[in-house]
Amino acid sequence: MKANRRDVVMGMGAGFAAAYSLGSAGKLSAAQPRRKLGYAIVGLGSYATNQIMPRIGGCEHAKLTALVSGTPEKLARYGAEYGIPSTHHYNYANFDSIRDNPDIDIVYVVLPNSMHAEYTIRAAQAGKHVMCEKPMAISSAECEAMIAACRKAGTRLMIGYRSQFEPHNLYAMALAQRGDLGPTQIITSEHGFYAQPNQWRLERPLSGGGSLMDIGIYSLQAARYLAGEEPTEVMAMETTDRSDPRFATVEDRIDFQLRFPSGVMASCVSSYSSNHNNYRFHGRDGFLRAEPATSYDGHQFWVHRDGETREVVLPPPPKNQFAAQLDHLPEAIFAGVEPRASGEEGLRDMRIIEAIYQSAREGRAIRLAGS
Amino acid sequence: MKANRRDVVMGMGAGFAAAYSLGSAGKLSAAQPRRKLGYAIVGLGSYATNQIMPRIGGCEHAKLTALVSGTPEKLARYGAEYGIPSTHHYNYANFDSIRDNPDIDIVYVVLPNSMHAEYTIRAAQAGKHVMCEKPMAISSAECEAMIAACRKAGTRLMIGYRSQFEPHNLYAMALAQRGDLGPTQIITSEHGFYAQPNQWRLERPLSGGGSLMDIGIYSLQAARYLAGEEPTEVMAMETTDRSDPRFATVEDRIDFQLRFPSGVMASCVSSYSSNHNNYRFHGRDGFLRAEPATSYDGHQFWVHRDGETREVVLPPPPKNQFAAQLDHLPEAIFAGVEPRASGEEGLRDMRIIEAIYQSAREGRAIRLAGS
Repeated sequence: MKANRRDVVMGMGAGFAAAYSLGSAGKLSAAQPRRKLGYAIVGLGSYATNQIMPRIGGCEHAKLTALVSGTPEKLARYGAEYGIPSTHHYNYANFDSIRDNPDIDIVYVVLPNSMHAEYTIRAAQAGKHVMCEKPMAISSAECEAMIAACRKAGTRLMIGYRSQFEPHNLYAMALAQRGDLGPTQIITSEHGFYAQPNQWRLERPLSGGGSLMDIGIYSLQAARYLAGEEPTEVMAMETTDRSDPRFATVEDRIDFQLRFPSGVMASCVSSYSSNHNNYRFHGRDGFLRAEPATSYDGHQFWVHRDGETREVVLPPPPKNQFAAQLDHLPEAIFAGVEPRASGEEGLRDMRIIEAIYQSAREGRAIRLAGS
Repeated sequence: MKANRRDVVMGMGAGFAAAYSLGSAGKLSAAQPRRKLGYAIVGLGSYATNQIMPRIGGCEHAKLTALVSGTPEKLARYGAEYGIPSTHHYNYANFDSIRDNPDIDIVYVVLPNSMHAEYTIRAAQAGKHVMCEKPMAISSAECEAMIAACRKAGTRLMIGYRSQFEPHNLYAMALAQRGDLGPTQIITSEHGFYAQPNQWRLERPLSGGGSLMDIGIYSLQAARYLAGEEPTEVMAMETTDRSDPRFATVEDRIDFQLRFPSGVMASCVSSYSSNHNNYRFHGRDGFLRAEPATSYDGHQFWVHRDGETREVVLPPPPKNQFAAQLDHLPEAIFAGVEPRASGEEGLRDMRIIEAIYQSAREGRAIRLAGS
């Protein structure tokens, strides 16, 4: 099992190119306008300011045009840094007046989970399209209300599932769907990190839950996009040290199994007490291993087949996962189609998350509605 | 996550040496006799003839003295190959006359699972010590009867858990117990292979079950010896394509979760349709990854900590896992102690296997008796 660096993509043939570039769905046609749509960022926390805002400059179809925060100092600081005039600064009290600002096309909700539904719905009511961070909300009922509000307003809703725009992950999805390693039998997916105390994600009223809502959702997403189908049954087990002050209101570790209609099974890990960022899928003829699998950068993927391990080495992507995600919603808006990673996609995850919690609580398998 | 080959053992300090050499339990003291004990091999199939018999020559305390088979050609062939005279050849009809052969000290049962109990009990009744392949039997009731028979006869019983004698696995156990990566939070363990059709392991009357009895037991063993404690609860999900002629009577894939008293959780895979041989344990401060983890040879183990991955490079062991296992039972007999991997150890696995099957069948968590 010696690692042998090889450009596996080159051996995949032309079929891969389409998958790698997200196919034609939602691609802007040459005849359509190419103006950049304006994003208002709502919630100037670490993820927004360190990951999203610095990447907007690299987008084809997106620009930063407004900021929303409850902290005047943040508005002043980031307004200066990104050249956003004070006429385009908002707080949570005057947020609804974004309806009068034609420079705002899309509202990107990067608030604590419990605020996703409210600000998505208020943005839709202001006539704006919405990008909302994952988890989409803290209940499936909220997700349904968000979808309904956007539908009523005639605006698009997309969830910030950046890994669905990341080249290595797109490669893995394409390989699983092509069945080059034989039909998938088993998926494993593990995500976790050590959650430091004293932050909103450890307060249930703000987060809606613990590691599963925050990082375990990556395990769930990967299982679903590698399987390429929807699970019909879940089983889960939780373990939380309630004497640890971090876990007064949310869970620590929760492992879950998913059954898919084709017979594929996924075994998933979610943790707030240990670091994990990997997944694998196994067919009869080999497996793909990813580690780190869904990180901001530095992805490493290997394909094991015929007793040989080859690292997946991809050509540099035209844009990174953040820019690709930010550009995709404008592309979908221009094309008049639902974005990949739509509100329905977020709702599907949330319904499964609710079933995972129920399974852990009741100690039994939970069949998923509609399956 | 660049792999950086380093001798991690050298950094472990003196504490490791004891674990690596199995500690003092069961070690033969200098004052005791050093004669080699004679093994009779029962069942001359692939594992016996390709893995065990060729390794007996490298043992300190074991020699091959008798053969038991229902196939005269095999007795003739292997008798000639290993210099075993026909006076030391037995079949299943005259097996009990081994009692009259003083050259046989230990009977090694390498038969299909359903025959383990019968031949272990008959060997004990013939006054012989027993090494029995895993799974110990096809039910916990059989395991209990085997333990009782050996106790009554005053003979020792050991189960062929060779990984408990393999240096990399011993290293992993020692590292987990030392807690150098922080207390263990999550264990994952995956074992599987593509089972070819038309063999006894696919016939329930002979095997007692499918992948779990055969290869998934490695996932279970590893979870237990890495956790260093006994699970209190299991949850499992099975998926088997009953239209596949391989699976007329046994299961294909079965994934299971284990909860341990300290809060450790294990997420385990067992498959007859895909290749898996790996495990990991994650503490707060890092993780160990093994792949292949429990193979006949070629083990590769890595420790990830502080953003660095180091391969575990061990000094060549004084003897391989097969010889160490074969020598251990004579050592325990000489020392008058229970062997590591005793019948009780096999029984513990079997009780958990029964609970895993029950959980998958009933779709609910099963608490383990005595927990």
